[in-house]
Amino acid sequence: MKIAVLPGDGIGTEIVAEAVKVLKALGLSFEMESALVGGAAYEAHGHPLPEFTLKLAQAADAVLFGAVGDWKYDKLDRPLRPEQAILGLRKHLGLFANFRPAICYEQLVGASSLKPELVAGLDILIIRELTGDIYFGQPRGRRTAVDGHFPGAEEAFDTMRYSRPEIERIARVAFEAARKRSKKVTSVDKANVLETFQFWKDVVTEVGKEYPDVALDHMYVDNAAMQLVKAPKKFDVVVTGNMFGDILSDEASMLTGSIGMLPSASLNDKKQGLYEPSHGSAPDIAGKGVANPLATILSAAMMLRFSLNQEEAAARIETAVQKVLAQGLRTPDIYSEGTTQVGTAQMGDAVVKAL
Amino acid sequence: MKIAVLPGDGIGTEIVAEAVKVLKALGLSFEMESALVGGAAYEAHGHPLPEFTLKLAQAADAVLFGAVGDWKYDKLDRPLRPEQAILGLRKHLGLFANFRPAICYEQLVGASSLKPELVAGLDILIIRELTGDIYFGQPRGRRTAVDGHFPGAEEAFDTMRYSRPEIERIARVAFEAARKRSKKVTSVDKANVLETFQFWKDVVTEVGKEYPDVALDHMYVDNAAMQLVKAPKKFDVVVTGNMFGDILSDEASMLTGSIGMLPSASLNDKKQGLYEPSHGSAPDIAGKGVANPLATILSAAMMLRFSLNQEEAAARIETAVQKVLAQGLRTPDIYSEGTTQVGTAQMGDAVVKAL
Ligand SMILES: CC(C)[C@H](C(=O)O)[C@@H](O)C(=O)O
Ligand SMILES: CC(C)[C@H](C(=O)O)[C@@H](O)C(=O)O
Repeated sequence: MKIAVLPGDGIGTEIVAEAVKVLKALGLSFEMESALVGGAAYEAHGHPLPEFTLKLAQAADAVLFGAVGDWKYDKLDRPLRPEQAILGLRKHLGLFANFRPAICYEQLVGASSLKPELVAGLDILIIRELTGDIYFGQPRGRRTAVDGHFPGAEEAFDTMRYSRPEIERIARVAFEAARKRSKKVTSVDKANVLETFQFWKDVVTEVGKEYPDVALDHMYVDNAAMQLVKAPKKFDVVVTGNMFGDILSDEASMLTGSIGMLPSASLNDKKQGLYEPSHGSAPDIAGKGVANPLATILSAAMMLRFSLNQEEAAARIETAVQKVLAQGLRTPDIYSEGTTQVGTAQMGDAVVKAL
Repeated sequence: MKIAVLPGDGIGTEIVAEAVKVLKALGLSFEMESALVGGAAYEAHGHPLPEFTLKLAQAADAVLFGAVGDWKYDKLDRPLRPEQAILGLRKHLGLFANFRPAICYEQLVGASSLKPELVAGLDILIIRELTGDIYFGQPRGRRTAVDGHFPGAEEAFDTMRYSRPEIERIARVAFEAARKRSKKVTSVDKANVLETFQFWKDVVTEVGKEYPDVALDHMYVDNAAMQLVKAPKKFDVVVTGNMFGDILSDEASMLTGSIGMLPSASLNDKKQGLYEPSHGSAPDIAGKGVANPLATILSAAMMLRFSLNQEEAAARIETAVQKVLAQGLRTPDIYSEGTTQVGTAQMGDAVVKAL
């Protein structure tokens, strides 16, 4: 079992170190190799996703990823910016299926912006298509407008697109996931305006016929953004495109109050996967030893389950995390009165102890 | 002063009737003419935006609009669906500047999903570009993919685009609005992924130099969707494109708990405008006399202010609405214990009385 370890920037190195600590404590035999990615790779090698890093990721069964990005790289040309590394990994590894759970941890209900009764017990699984849509569609760029409101003016443009097999495969991922949960899928689109998402809706509906045991409904993206606020517990599995998924999964994870706890997985059709916390690189708190490593540790658990076929070890980690929460240990982001504040490494150590 | 009155579908007719009642009670001389729009127009004339309706709107100083849409039209070909009427009006009248306030009414703080301290006093103005972006970009349609993941497969596509003058004019609208408020603009983009929104960010930054007294910051759309949940009061004026604005303005209005109270305005460069509530046609409660007419009544106030140059009359309506709220009158959507529940017409009558 080969794991590529890519800590990245900001708090990435600190939180990944704790996840590695936990993985090592399991007593399984992994081959782990680290490489630079993002801004750190740009500074050392002039590129956010150097050849070496990409090859390492491609040759591994799974990638454990921290986070990338920092304001200081904002002025770089786009192809050199840290986030290009993550886009490049998704593309080159074909990681089309992004799983983003939005779970409200019982002990953290109070940390949510929402009233407790709206989020207690919340458990949504957002499945975001990750290698298509307007993220990768060609052509894109700048040009002189030939029509529209101001023909002759300078304009920039991008192409949104989805092909039938791209929609079919992500829809199947969603229906399969729903079969293991409450058998309900909400497909989010903007079929009332976009050709791409009318097609999306049509194809998801067709695929849905293969899953008569799963209830399918459709919702416009603007309405979904509202319903997530109004009654998030009405959702179970949500499937949507890359762009809408980017927005809605962030909204949903923030609703939970548990964003420091939320893992994510991005898989290809060979079950190779990239595992990373749902939160970002938080350059403002980097190096201070205060970042919450639990989302990354839980991402490692997802990795064991989805890519390494180690369900038992995955469950051990998840139970250990529950234990440290029950013990009252909290990093500053999830601290509340009456609990015990700890740093990044102490939290990692506590999980190891609880295994 | 000519007003085109387009009630539309669902609760549209009921709520617009109350706004018309309030306008008539002002004692000003308007010429008001009504026409069918949306599903109602499709049923009568075979098209959601008949020639007569469009001409009436074009010839008016302002359009008072209710709402359009009903599930029963979902199976129609796209060009015949009710929402095409609203897209057509925006396009033909050139209504590029959409103002969507997200205000949390003091008396309705408790109706928000968010904790009271996060929304009490909330007052955001979302300015959404309304005639560009992927809503109208050409080409769009279905075709056989020539590249991408599945060359040869059937695909659907749309074009996102913005030209420099389109971005400049909406940016100016935002900076001017900010000058009358707290002198702060947040421009929302996805410059880390989209060419269109890197250009957007660049042009907004340039225009910002003409407004040195206004603070400008930039935020990615996914982060904006999170920050709206986490700390909505950090926002004041938000400016963004058509697609992101659709999603974020709905999210923001739902956060307030006051969605039944929120008006909107869509203006062109001649200050002609279309005024409509932020909520939809709610077919489930149509015809029952329970819909909240206040968003539409407040839209009429915006109309008086922005398109008809009747600031005093606008303020009279707004004060009257405050009064009926203070009297404890509530339609079912905003009802809470200890207040008095009233129907659509009673609420309209109460506003007239309070004028
Ligand atoms: C960094 C950025 C390119 C990325 C995205 O938009 O996909 C991020 O927001 C995410 O959700 O992983
Ligand atoms: C009905 C639909 C086309 C419209 C839009 O997407 O603009 C609506 O959601 C809105 O926000 O006015």
